[in-house]
Amino acid sequence: MAEQKATNVTWHDHAVSREERAKLNGHRGAVLWFTGLSGCGKSCVANAVDQLLHDRRVHTYVLDGDNIRMGLNKNLGFSPEDRTENIRRIGEVGRLFADSGTIVTTAFISPYREDRNAVRALFKDGEFIEIYVKASLETCESRDPKGLYKKARAGEIKGFTGIDAPYEPPESGELELDSDNCGIEELAGQVIAYLETRGFLSA
Amino acid sequence: MAEQKATNVTWHDHAVSREERAKLNGHRGAVLWFTGLSGCGKSCVANAVDQLLHDRRVHTYVLDGDNIRMGLNKNLGFSPEDRTENIRRIGEVGRLFADSGTIVTTAFISPYREDRNAVRALFKDGEFIEIYVKASLETCESRDPKGLYKKARAGEIKGFTGIDAPYEPPESGELELDSDNCGIEELAGQVIAYLETRGFLSA
Repeated sequence: MAEQKATNVTWHDHAVSREERAKLNGHRGAVLWFTGLSGCGKSCVANAVDQLLHDRRVHTYVLDGDNIRMGLNKNLGFSPEDRTENIRRIGEVGRLFADSGTIVTTAFISPYREDRNAVRALFKDGEFIEIYVKASLETCESRDPKGLYKKARAGEIKGFTGIDAPYEPPESGELELDSDNCGIEELAGQVIAYLETRGFLSA
Repeated sequence: MAEQKATNVTWHDHAVSREERAKLNGHRGAVLWFTGLSGCGKSCVANAVDQLLHDRRVHTYVLDGDNIRMGLNKNLGFSPEDRTENIRRIGEVGRLFADSGTIVTTAFISPYREDRNAVRALFKDGEFIEIYVKASLETCESRDPKGLYKKARAGEIKGFTGIDAPYEPPESGELELDSDNCGIEELAGQVIAYLETRGFLSA
């Protein structure tokens, strides 16, 4: 079948369209952009959402510190310029994954509104879904899973978001999750419900 | 079903494994790294392979100049350092796609052996498939689809691979395609045959 088709086709760049990849997958691509303070639960909720989507046979991938900071962005530090370039690259990779038909989740603090909006501008309407995982600094600092707040308070880490570097919450994001008062499962369920109402998932 | 599972699961980073994504797709991920002179047919063969794979319900994506140079790597030029960083980033993105379970093809001149080998080192054995699209400079220059050789000969483009910048052919790549003497379909078929023998595709 494939060979027969090959004899009739005109080869050209991007022979397989975005729509054809979406049809194969059974859904279109998008980026679920989680943002929030260190310790707010971004990564946990992102991975919970990823698993729930995978259970529904959605083609997914997670971009996070583990696979980005050690790889693509290992030549970047934490200066404001490098943070901006960090987010820009993640946004561009997110765009490639969304174009490929994947629902990709990203879990980075991404503290600057301008940087997130620059990423949003890369996407078609509805394909960039900004999810603010809202938790008070007190909540995050009390969790402190990696001991980073302690180090930041001790002055061992400079430019730590929420301590001596700003976090700018989204002003018009698609979703806001209350991580002070809700558990991971509940928050993940809210993201799935959003995707259902937006037609990304079959019921 | 998803909700029931959610109540029993321990949420953690990368909840969905590489193996689970491969199972959903019906195949594992890999990168098909096309390399060769400008005009050798890399992009045509890469897209033909992509289409043949898609016809077989393989989850694919193509990284090429159109979606990389205008996006992720738009802040890079053509100095040796920038060419190296260009290939490094493409390699890292290829790794992410392969990890996601996609068979991703890349179509870049990627003239330096050292740069390609650095990309190879990112991958597990068998997942980096280097494909040399071999064509003589005469063949490529006679095709000159974008008029670049003409400009390079006139001195309007500096550092053009094959004219005043080197191309280092693979010494131990997985495949070598004879683009001087074979057409696109035949070369694409050779890549598919290779993937079949290596167990990437069901018969």
